[in-house]
Amino acid sequence: MEKSTRKTPNWYTPPAPEGSYRSILKLGKPDDVKHPGDSWRTMIADVLGLPPDHFEGPPRNTGDEKVVIDQAIALSEDRIRAIESIVGAENVDRDDYQRVKFSYGKFTDEATDLRRGDVAPVCDLVVYPRDKNDVRALVQYCNDEGVPVIPYGGGSSASLGFSPEQGGIVLVLTTHMNQVVSLNERNQTATVQAGLMAPAYEEALNDAVKRFGTQHAYTCGHFPQSFPLTSVGGWVPTLGSGQASTYYGDAYDIVFSQEYVTPVGSFKTHDFPATATGPKVNDIMKGSEGAFGILVEVTFKIFRYMPENRQYFTFMFPNWEDAVRATQEVMQGEFGHPAVFRLSDGEETETSLRMYGGSYGVVDGILRSRGLKKDQRCLLMGTAEGEKGYAKHVKRMVRKIARQHGALYLSGWPTRMWEKDRYSHPFLREDMMDFDVMIDTVETPVTWDNIHTVYAAIREFVKSHPDTMCLTHASHFYPQGTNLYAIFGTRFTSKREFQTLRNGVVDRMVAAGGSPTHHHGVGKLFAPWMQEHLGKEQMDVLRALKRHFDPNNIMNPGSLMGLND
Amino acid sequence: MEKSTRKTPNWYTPPAPEGSYRSILKLGKPDDVKHPGDSWRTMIADVLGLPPDHFEGPPRNTGDEKVVIDQAIALSEDRIRAIESIVGAENVDRDDYQRVKFSYGKFTDEATDLRRGDVAPVCDLVVYPRDKNDVRALVQYCNDEGVPVIPYGGGSSASLGFSPEQGGIVLVLTTHMNQVVSLNERNQTATVQAGLMAPAYEEALNDAVKRFGTQHAYTCGHFPQSFPLTSVGGWVPTLGSGQASTYYGDAYDIVFSQEYVTPVGSFKTHDFPATATGPKVNDIMKGSEGAFGILVEVTFKIFRYMPENRQYFTFMFPNWEDAVRATQEVMQGEFGHPAVFRLSDGEETETSLRMYGGSYGVVDGILRSRGLKKDQRCLLMGTAEGEKGYAKHVKRMVRKIARQHGALYLSGWPTRMWEKDRYSHPFLREDMMDFDVMIDTVETPVTWDNIHTVYAAIREFVKSHPDTMCLTHASHFYPQGTNLYAIFGTRFTSKREFQTLRNGVVDRMVAAGGSPTHHHGVGKLFAPWMQEHLGKEQMDVLRALKRHFDPNNIMNPGSLMGLND
Repeated sequence: MEKSTRKTPNWYTPPAPEGSYRSILKLGKPDDVKHPGDSWRTMIADVLGLPPDHFEGPPRNTGDEKVVIDQAIALSEDRIRAIESIVGAENVDRDDYQRVKFSYGKFTDEATDLRRGDVAPVCDLVVYPRDKNDVRALVQYCNDEGVPVIPYGGGSSASLGFSPEQGGIVLVLTTHMNQVVSLNERNQTATVQAGLMAPAYEEALNDAVKRFGTQHAYTCGHFPQSFPLTSVGGWVPTLGSGQASTYYGDAYDIVFSQEYVTPVGSFKTHDFPATATGPKVNDIMKGSEGAFGILVEVTFKIFRYMPENRQYFTFMFPNWEDAVRATQEVMQGEFGHPAVFRLSDGEETETSLRMYGGSYGVVDGILRSRGLKKDQRCLLMGTAEGEKGYAKHVKRMVRKIARQHGALYLSGWPTRMWEKDRYSHPFLREDMMDFDVMIDTVETPVTWDNIHTVYAAIREFVKSHPDTMCLTHASHFYPQGTNLYAIFGTRFTSKREFQTLRNGVVDRMVAAGGSPTHHHGVGKLFAPWMQEHLGKEQMDVLRALKRHFDPNNIMNPGSLMGLND
Repeated sequence: MEKSTRKTPNWYTPPAPEGSYRSILKLGKPDDVKHPGDSWRTMIADVLGLPPDHFEGPPRNTGDEKVVIDQAIALSEDRIRAIESIVGAENVDRDDYQRVKFSYGKFTDEATDLRRGDVAPVCDLVVYPRDKNDVRALVQYCNDEGVPVIPYGGGSSASLGFSPEQGGIVLVLTTHMNQVVSLNERNQTATVQAGLMAPAYEEALNDAVKRFGTQHAYTCGHFPQSFPLTSVGGWVPTLGSGQASTYYGDAYDIVFSQEYVTPVGSFKTHDFPATATGPKVNDIMKGSEGAFGILVEVTFKIFRYMPENRQYFTFMFPNWEDAVRATQEVMQGEFGHPAVFRLSDGEETETSLRMYGGSYGVVDGILRSRGLKKDQRCLLMGTAEGEKGYAKHVKRMVRKIARQHGALYLSGWPTRMWEKDRYSHPFLREDMMDFDVMIDTVETPVTWDNIHTVYAAIREFVKSHPDTMCLTHASHFYPQGTNLYAIFGTRFTSKREFQTLRNGVVDRMVAAGGSPTHHHGVGKLFAPWMQEHLGKEQMDVLRALKRHFDPNNIMNPGSLMGLND
């Protein structure tokens, strides 16, 4: 290891400047940072074949400049006045900065562009509806006038999920429509406005005894890694999954009923735990990504909040195959399910061990002495939640099965550490991009009988490129399979080259029997794979729904989901 | 009690005559009977205000006559030949008996008519496709020619789910398309042809170690009361629920993927445990009742079969309110769920106690001595399944909660008795109808916060008619609510009068916040409630899907589901 790489780089630490591109592209709040430790950085430099001086000098392409665009507003003053007359002039923004901010998600390519002041077509106006009546009036007006309408929640999309390429108005739901409407303890449901941010929602539920006079405290059960950046209304139309989904279910599962505003009318689905009145419109709307209409309120199932019962566990398996077999047995054993359940492959396991810095040598030594070899050993972290006896029994059974598959129990401590830190890991992206290191992710569902095929396809393709990183984990488990989440990285050369790499990974993943997306939605990013993947017959069903709900094609239009191809 | 009612009536015992109306209308196999005991019959006579001699004399309107119809086949010989050329002449029937048999389900009004030889318009031909290619060719031909196509599985519909009122061809799927295609132990899924009968499916799964060389035995987890009469392909398009749904899920939940033949093409949905590629076509097809296309193959999730772990329990609660509170607590307690879970109201509890005949007096005495009063006390039966420790823990927790709500534990024995007998209870219908006693059912989902409102609405309406029976139970539980299943009965006066009673119950149930159907599908029976219940906006979504899949309106056409209104 060269001495120069030991010096901690000049990580970018100050808050992103107000009004800057950086303030739009960066993940988290303006001052959220998570600088990598030296051991981790050194490993990355090694894997990516970076020269010894790579991390020297100041951060590059930081996007510190003030946002300036030269894009005329395509809406006439008459139309702007009409929109202002619906929501009030104070709830309409035509400022350049806001137009850019609310036209961008958090996809890597977007960050790459913004860092260089390269701005794609943005929306004409940013509108902050006060309530669902405003949304109704806006959608009706825009439908009559043919003006595109793009809903915006937390803005965390990693797949180009909102798409103002044809201009139009962005409806920011988080400004006013951000309240818990009601909590129904009898039914264990909470009705919320779509623009409520996730942390505020969870806090309200945890604190329900005080805030709503309930008997129990509650939890939402949905904790995607983007949790602090998401609004609850984004979870459902994009089909997200939380880190505890193995117990609580995906966003799809925790929805009880929904209220939508569409160009052909507004409706709320019924509050029933099950019903046989034909195909469920409540489910048809899930995953519609703003292309059918705007989710204005949603009623979620909620769960008793009993953190005092949470059981933590961490295991190290000798290899990926045994670890997969063990997780399969856990999911099929009919004894309940763990909540967090997260299995890292060999490469990710090494990265995780490095993440925690100085003690790597000691830990590595202990693991080796138990026959758990570097690059082969696999880390499994997890929790069991719910009622006390249930959580204990689930942990007991997981432990029994893990042991049967050769795993070493590492106590609950590493999982506790991971839990504390889990939402800040993505902030690493900024430091990496500041020094021309690109890190991105793809993810797919897999069944147990094709997990190894898909895993190999992803890994072989990434690794067929020199100096690449490929960390893979499975983190959403089901009796029939799980997901694979691959984090790949390389040194930045050009956007096009990185796109070619990413598209290649998705191609291989889908060809091997995966899907282009397990929980990142489709957006414009994965739209090109949709028709071939689903087949024309199934795409035609989605297109028929699009035509029904949005005959004038004003709802989040563009090449979203492949609906306009 | 008058002495005359003590004499056992002349119940109809011989097998239904071959070729008779009775052989079509009766539930179960031709010789399946379940005669009521004297105590139960006496109670019924009492509740319904029947005269002392009501059950005397021979059974009435038994439908023993040979089926004879005078309905010309509307299809030209050319068309018949074309159809024969697709499936082979040996797989086409134009016989009157078959045309009637495969045009009728098991709805009470259908039985009432058939008992009197009163036959509605029937299909033109009965066709037995050999495989999915036959189905494809038939649907394509019929779409081109505008000939109605009606799929027929087990024929157990209780809601007029197939509807050959415009003639056309009925596709009987059970004749040839009745195989387990494959069992995937890795994924814990089974792929089956739609015409496989439920008992054969369950037997194959239970016997999987021998038949498929699997490591474990499996169960389908879906046991509707109509189990022996149903084909697996009927479960999904009608959104059925089984008696162990509280653990295993409804038919909706146990589907992994499906293959459909529709007028606009055939497709198979992907085998993924979850995916974010837009609205799920796999779910859109569930509940489509043959109106969008024909389900030809389905891949189900399956479960490990471990009957040795099954825990039985029975409790008697002092009243309905406490019992409901206890079941709610069980469902929301986060310790797993029981499998069978079935709570009877006061009136049904009495009927159940009478069902087991002679010992009623003794049982009643014991219950009274514990303060559990007649007509108030409520029976809760259930099982816990899955892994041994899990099942035991669930039972332990249910017992703890039941006790906290004043219940007396009655051992597992009554539930075992019920389980043994559970599929034969419906056969009672024939004896009752033979003696002009009408028994029918309605059912609805409820949330915990409206269960008592809906319950009262059903019961008050039925009981506002003199001499009526109204037995209610909840048998499919969810954290957010349950279902109410009401069995109502009265003396037969006319079909119209009975229809008025039934429609009145559904009206009241829906007005009180229920749904027209929890797990009996919509069919023609509940179609009239659909638009008002779902609202025009949601019905328009279903109609848009119908137009997309079936532009020529040939798939199970008629007033099914309200799609053509």
